[in-house]
Amino acid sequence: MTINYPNGRPFQTFTTKHRAQSHSTAGHGDRGMSLEAEINQSNQFYQAQQIAVVHKKPTPIQIVNVDYPKRSAAVIKEAYFKQASTTDYNGIYAGYYLDFDAKETTNLQSFPLANFHPHQIHHMQSCADLGGICFALIRFVRKNEIYLLNGPDLFRFWERQFNGGRKSITRTELATSAYLIKPKINPLIPYLDAVQAIIDKNKGE
Amino acid sequence: MTINYPNGRPFQTFTTKHRAQSHSTAGHGDRGMSLEAEINQSNQFYQAQQIAVVHKKPTPIQIVNVDYPKRSAAVIKEAYFKQASTTDYNGIYAGYYLDFDAKETTNLQSFPLANFHPHQIHHMQSCADLGGICFALIRFVRKNEIYLLNGPDLFRFWERQFNGGRKSITRTELATSAYLIKPKINPLIPYLDAVQAIIDKNKGE
Repeated sequence: MTINYPNGRPFQTFTTKHRAQSHSTAGHGDRGMSLEAEINQSNQFYQAQQIAVVHKKPTPIQIVNVDYPKRSAAVIKEAYFKQASTTDYNGIYAGYYLDFDAKETTNLQSFPLANFHPHQIHHMQSCADLGGICFALIRFVRKNEIYLLNGPDLFRFWERQFNGGRKSITRTELATSAYLIKPKINPLIPYLDAVQAIIDKNKGE
Repeated sequence: MTINYPNGRPFQTFTTKHRAQSHSTAGHGDRGMSLEAEINQSNQFYQAQQIAVVHKKPTPIQIVNVDYPKRSAAVIKEAYFKQASTTDYNGIYAGYYLDFDAKETTNLQSFPLANFHPHQIHHMQSCADLGGICFALIRFVRKNEIYLLNGPDLFRFWERQFNGGRKSITRTELATSAYLIKPKINPLIPYLDAVQAIIDKNKGE
């Protein structure tokens, strides 16, 4: 269950973002480390190894009021969180454009599709149409399981809900449709193994 | 000449970002339209035509203090502009990963390399090494000229300054090394024509 603020903003997401922005000092492998922090650490590893360059986009902010104190940095005095128009992560791996989002659920057996915004799905579809590899990283927090769900499969589950289907993806469906990512030391979340499997599969088709 | 705040933050860049964030109502083709606004408009056109998906990344902000008023949106009460660790734009075109930055100068005959941060060059080099197409869009504001300078050429000019060479790229050098982008109605800045020329050239080599 996701706890929301009265305005509908999910509590969990916001905490995660805020934590990352204030440069959490949580050590690698920390059990309570957010999915975002683990992905960022994995991306740092991939970049250091010259395997991929993937970054999380900054949280979009609507700035309303800025102060310019003399002899010191500009201070934003009033700003609001904006809805992102794309996914959170993109970059390049082996010449391929990558685009993905990372989501967590505390559910045990299904992942609610409401975790995605329609424009995120639309954005991934547009990128996939142009040859990009788009996917979702989905963590079942209480199972400590991470799945990589390839775009075309995600789009299929997404469309299903508008044809009378369920508004979630079951863990059983993910176990057969998605790639289970087994955490390692370096990188913590070796998601590019699954991406390479997708590339190989696409080439074989 | 770039006017800086006492803290060294360039005035021009900041105004541009702030203007874009407050959703400038300047019409298309407006002479005073910022390079960023024109690129964003061009990207909207490319995306609508399903030619490319390219977005400007949000300005990175370090959030220090947030208020959670009851029954309304969270308000950021104190935040600071952070240095971006990558370029401003990335996306996908014809299966290729694109990564670029846009810079303006009011100089008449040369573009100062100080407009780039070393980490932006490093980021573009890393992406280019993985098969991405990285470049800079450089506008001479008072000449109303826009050049697309391909990564490898940019890197060459960048390195030159550390070998006793000049700390800028002359307009004459750009005229021979870069692609002059002739503004159109739609898109305003048809930079993908030059990108396609680079792709064709790379294939021929």
